Amino acid sequence: MVERLAESATEGGGKVSIVDCDIHNAVPSPESLKPYLSTRWQEHQEMIGPRYRHGFTQGDPYPRGNPNAARLDAWPPSGLPPGSDLAFMREQLLDALDIEYGILNCLDKVGEQLNEEYAAALARAVNDWQIAEWLEKEPRLRASIVVPYENADFAAAEIERVSDHPGFVQILLLVRTREPLGRRKYWRMYEAAQQYGLPVGIHFGGMGGNPITSSGWPSYYIEDHTTMSQAFQSQVISLVSEGVLERFPDLRVVMIEGGFAWLPPLMWRLDKHWKRLRDEVPHLKRLPSEYVKEHIWLTTQPMEEPTNPKHLLQVIEHLGSEEKLMFSTDYPHWDYDDPNRAFPIRLPPDLKQKIFSENAHALYRFEAGE
Amino acid sequence: MVERLAESATEGGGKVSIVDCDIHNAVPSPESLKPYLSTRWQEHQEMIGPRYRHGFTQGDPYPRGNPNAARLDAWPPSGLPPGSDLAFMREQLLDALDIEYGILNCLDKVGEQLNEEYAAALARAVNDWQIAEWLEKEPRLRASIVVPYENADFAAAEIERVSDHPGFVQILLLVRTREPLGRRKYWRMYEAAQQYGLPVGIHFGGMGGNPITSSGWPSYYIEDHTTMSQAFQSQVISLVSEGVLERFPDLRVVMIEGGFAWLPPLMWRLDKHWKRLRDEVPHLKRLPSEYVKEHIWLTTQPMEEPTNPKHLLQVIEHLGSEEKLMFSTDYPHWDYDDPNRAFPIRLPPDLKQKIFSENAHALYRFEAGE
Repeated sequence: MVERLAESATEGGGKVSIVDCDIHNAVPSPESLKPYLSTRWQEHQEMIGPRYRHGFTQGDPYPRGNPNAARLDAWPPSGLPPGSDLAFMREQLLDALDIEYGILNCLDKVGEQLNEEYAAALARAVNDWQIAEWLEKEPRLRASIVVPYENADFAAAEIERVSDHPGFVQILLLVRTREPLGRRKYWRMYEAAQQYGLPVGIHFGGMGGNPITSSGWPSYYIEDHTTMSQAFQSQVISLVSEGVLERFPDLRVVMIEGGFAWLPPLMWRLDKHWKRLRDEVPHLKRLPSEYVKEHIWLTTQPMEEPTNPKHLLQVIEHLGSEEKLMFSTDYPHWDYDDPNRAFPIRLPPDLKQKIFSENAHALYRFEAGE
Repeated sequence: MVERLAESATEGGGKVSIVDCDIHNAVPSPESLKPYLSTRWQEHQEMIGPRYRHGFTQGDPYPRGNPNAARLDAWPPSGLPPGSDLAFMREQLLDALDIEYGILNCLDKVGEQLNEEYAAALARAVNDWQIAEWLEKEPRLRASIVVPYENADFAAAEIERVSDHPGFVQILLLVRTREPLGRRKYWRMYEAAQQYGLPVGIHFGGMGGNPITSSGWPSYYIEDHTTMSQAFQSQVISLVSEGVLERFPDLRVVMIEGGFAWLPPLMWRLDKHWKRLRDEVPHLKRLPSEYVKEHIWLTTQPMEEPTNPKHLLQVIEHLGSEEKLMFSTDYPHWDYDDPNRAFPIRLPPDLKQKIFSENAHALYRFEAGE
């Protein structure tokens, strides 16, 4: 506080009127503005609300009309938030749909903390909590190790710390990282993943600091959500081009909640360019698509829904492998896929078996950990 | 220059030794470092050379092993740069391949100038030069109007200024713009495009200021080049989501040198999200894919080359229209497509006719301008 000077504006013979040129009045809550908004924008505020330039994960998850980005029926009677009540998850998901194994991907944003030591501490806490509250209590569940992935040394240390727990079957990152995931700063983490035989799961979301398009921030949430598949495309291109999949030949990577129909055109484009530009990336010994087909898995939700459902089977054929696609619900989120209704077309029985079960069994080796 | 003081460091009784803590020595040319680089990096320097964070178009075009990004045989005997000598272009392209009409897309970066008035002046100069040196001299050529597209008022003025010349059949932008192209700052330009019946061509390249991936800058040129198709994806999503294609019902947009196989999965994803999130974008009256199929054209180069060439016909079927794909060579650039070898599979005759000629005739209405 400034020491009071002898001269005062409001006292004494030299009293003057005062103009204050900066006072901050506050909107007490978004609801206060409701009477001043047209119905159109009242509805928008309820469904979407504010979005800022750095905002995909800054504020509430979207859409706001589904709080916590959850199905409206996924709020447990206990009053806990969706996805946090094991008993209710058993009832609503595991029992109701007769799930043999389910992979928990806890989206707590430990990897995005700017203080990396705090990120590491949070990761340890989340993983120990997962062991105590989930893995030890429910044999059908497996979990991904949450890691402070922007510091690969810290991430590797956390992988090493908990990898001997048989409930952990994967390492979890969010797709919008600070740098493309093929870059060297992340390699120590892949080395640990390979050493402990754990796939690296890359999930929808995150906020690395750059806009989601190369032309900056889009206006609408539907654009964020649709464009997210491009964040996955960039990561596949980076992991291949940097030679991560050559240098870590046992590394397995899972693209989670990013779709899959974009992958064939990406492989074709990358193969074509590699034929002309391979001298730039002499660490690649094979066609880019061969690395992709060998090392990259994908989950099904949100299911691709071609205008003509028959095209879905063609796209799966274009993937060049039936072994890499794995079913997921995204429970408890609003755009959840029900296993009985997810596919817009009847799958051949062999393919169905692979997508719903066999491919995940082969990747995660559930029995080995029991 | 600082006035010389009475005290001097190098003279008189108080003479002292001098330490200068900042002197800049200069590498006279990249070649000077050649003896100090291993063969591996000498070759890299010749083919790719320096790439910086903001670099896709900052320095030389890539790959450097193809100066001016051109085919090595595209340098005319006149000594002019590739693509700048009409006589040689006639001989090497128009005559040699019996081209009926060719669209000039001059990539001079007028739209990227930070000084918008200078950008507008450059656009006028390039367009007048195109009229004088190209359109008036060669009846097989048509051209795109170069515009200062980051200022839509200036762009609209330039469109209005030259649109009565029958040689101009399109407006040209580069795909990496400052903001997503659906945003309002560009609408005045679309209004002019619609008013004068000119398609908006969006071409590979540009540098709007953001990295090409949402996780920042990739290490390799092959990544820039492969990722560029995602810049196109973002622009389609933006043009649809912002309602540009609803508000300007006669607007026609051409994606040039961005590929096309990524479009079906994008339409499927956007349609699916729109079914859940349509309240956010009430200005859209139809399925997103319907706007795309009606308003978006695509050129073929660089041709998509599926591992199994038969899949190319399936992808064209997935586009939902045979009327929107148009052949292009990208002459004189290094990754040029020869019309006799571009397609990896034999096309049905009707489809071939459409892609090589009819679709462009329908879009550009060449005869109308003669």
